[in-house]
Amino acid sequence: MRILIIGTGGTIASSKTERGYKATLSVDEILEIAGIRGDGVKIDTKDVLNIDSTLIQPEDWITIGKAVFESLNDYDGIVITHGTDTLAYTSSALSFMLRNVPIPIVLTGSMLPITEPNSDAPRNLKTALTFAMKGFSGIYVAFMDKIMLGTRVSKVHSLGLNAFQSINYPDIAYIKGEEVVIRHRPELPTGEPSFDPRIDPNVAYLRLTPGLSPEVFLAVAEKVHGIVLEGYGAGGIPYRGRNLLEAVSRVAREKPVVMTTQALYGGVDLRRYEVGRRALEAGVIPAGDMTKEATLVKLMYALGRTNGLEEVRRIMEKNLAGELSSAF
Amino acid sequence: MRILIIGTGGTIASSKTERGYKATLSVDEILEIAGIRGDGVKIDTKDVLNIDSTLIQPEDWITIGKAVFESLNDYDGIVITHGTDTLAYTSSALSFMLRNVPIPIVLTGSMLPITEPNSDAPRNLKTALTFAMKGFSGIYVAFMDKIMLGTRVSKVHSLGLNAFQSINYPDIAYIKGEEVVIRHRPELPTGEPSFDPRIDPNVAYLRLTPGLSPEVFLAVAEKVHGIVLEGYGAGGIPYRGRNLLEAVSRVAREKPVVMTTQALYGGVDLRRYEVGRRALEAGVIPAGDMTKEATLVKLMYALGRTNGLEEVRRIMEKNLAGELSSAF
Repeated sequence: MRILIIGTGGTIASSKTERGYKATLSVDEILEIAGIRGDGVKIDTKDVLNIDSTLIQPEDWITIGKAVFESLNDYDGIVITHGTDTLAYTSSALSFMLRNVPIPIVLTGSMLPITEPNSDAPRNLKTALTFAMKGFSGIYVAFMDKIMLGTRVSKVHSLGLNAFQSINYPDIAYIKGEEVVIRHRPELPTGEPSFDPRIDPNVAYLRLTPGLSPEVFLAVAEKVHGIVLEGYGAGGIPYRGRNLLEAVSRVAREKPVVMTTQALYGGVDLRRYEVGRRALEAGVIPAGDMTKEATLVKLMYALGRTNGLEEVRRIMEKNLAGELSSAF
Repeated sequence: MRILIIGTGGTIASSKTERGYKATLSVDEILEIAGIRGDGVKIDTKDVLNIDSTLIQPEDWITIGKAVFESLNDYDGIVITHGTDTLAYTSSALSFMLRNVPIPIVLTGSMLPITEPNSDAPRNLKTALTFAMKGFSGIYVAFMDKIMLGTRVSKVHSLGLNAFQSINYPDIAYIKGEEVVIRHRPELPTGEPSFDPRIDPNVAYLRLTPGLSPEVFLAVAEKVHGIVLEGYGAGGIPYRGRNLLEAVSRVAREKPVVMTTQALYGGVDLRRYEVGRRALEAGVIPAGDMTKEATLVKLMYALGRTNGLEEVRRIMEKNLAGELSSAF
């Protein structure tokens, strides 16, 4: 059994500095502090980045994805240590870029630096390693004894240790001692492993708020190739007082405008209300029950492949890596 | 005992049309369908709006607030029926505009139209009415047997009936039969009742996402008087690859830039990480543990009072209506 651990930094690699916590430790140092030796398992390590995950840029997803793809044949599982702040974006990005991976790729991190007493880092690392040895294929996130699908996680707590949740989708497994208890076996597309790093990072994500000026929306739309508009509840675009719908309608003829929801759970259903139907008629692409993170990254992925508006729509509305339920 | 119910529309007032659900019913019609007669209680009704709450604009908060303020002396409690989509914005806005209200003001709504079988509208209305008769002062939201503080609620589910949660703050009470069980008695500022509708709606709310271009941020900032930037986790602004921090720093010298968090729970703490400290040094105003909705509306409220950057900061960092914990 051979496992690779790829390090990218984050709180799990942090120590205290005069200016707050900062990523400084290598994966070898993390394993040393965590007391993980990998009995009977050969663990290799590779540090590809060592940064706070607030600093992660779309180009870094390519670096991480490449490191994973190059190692697929040499390992039975790969663990990636990562800061929690953008972990859900990276797990989504890897899920779209790296398709049909034959082994488990498991991202994890921690809320407390490994250098602190009571850090959750050793526990999360062990959860990730345990699942990485179980022969599942696909991209997952391990946090607080839970295994979640990489395209379905969101960070829901900025302080608590149980910081991640699987959104609109069941947890995959949980860890009970050394045992992995399977809760849900995801149906993922199958085929030859591939790595396609084409993305267009030139997108923006704007929250719909009462009184949002059409001019603000147009100013953002002018600067980007695609825009995610985070609507309310089931979704819809206002046209009363300030006519945002007219501005959206104009932009949506040329660039993808994808609608997500501010509600953490439940997703978008633009057929439900009159305000939603009007948005659909204006050309808005519904994000269905995708997470906010998966929606944004998938838009970058779609725009990396095509400039065609209808082709972007087709990609956004198709389930690629478990991110979108068929009911939507 | 006299109760006023103010109607504004929303799903609770909706019926099915050929183009999806649409707000059409008056409060009297809602009460009729819900079978609420108010035994021993004199219920008056007033319809001030009848719209889907996606369409609510900041100016509508003034209309609703005025209707409440004019009725404070004539009633023992006021219930406001409202769509769920922007209910948390309206409850926050009323909490800032209407101070020291001596009676309970209780917003409620429903996820299923009152015209549908199994609608949650009658139940939510009864919860709101029950609490409105209990003599609490302040602005509250009643949903699924729970009473929450108006400045602390967020809509967390776009489909489920238990759609609202009190964020970073305990529930105020729950309803058990006819009984109100108090869980937490909020400490709200006291004084003479007042209504001050000054707000500046000219703000925007942008989500920080990996690769967000400084140009997008600057384009938004140019169009508005203040901006809410929704950071990751505990908060921080990236400066690697694309230097967003430099752009934020430039804007923050002239206009308020307030940082919230994408995580639903836990709030912002910019002292914790190096990326957060740099944001503080750049002049970013932390939203602490305020909800996203309260943060946005409070920024409108602050800008309605002053153009002074330091005065806006002072208002944002002070607890006005229970929206901000002292630890932040």
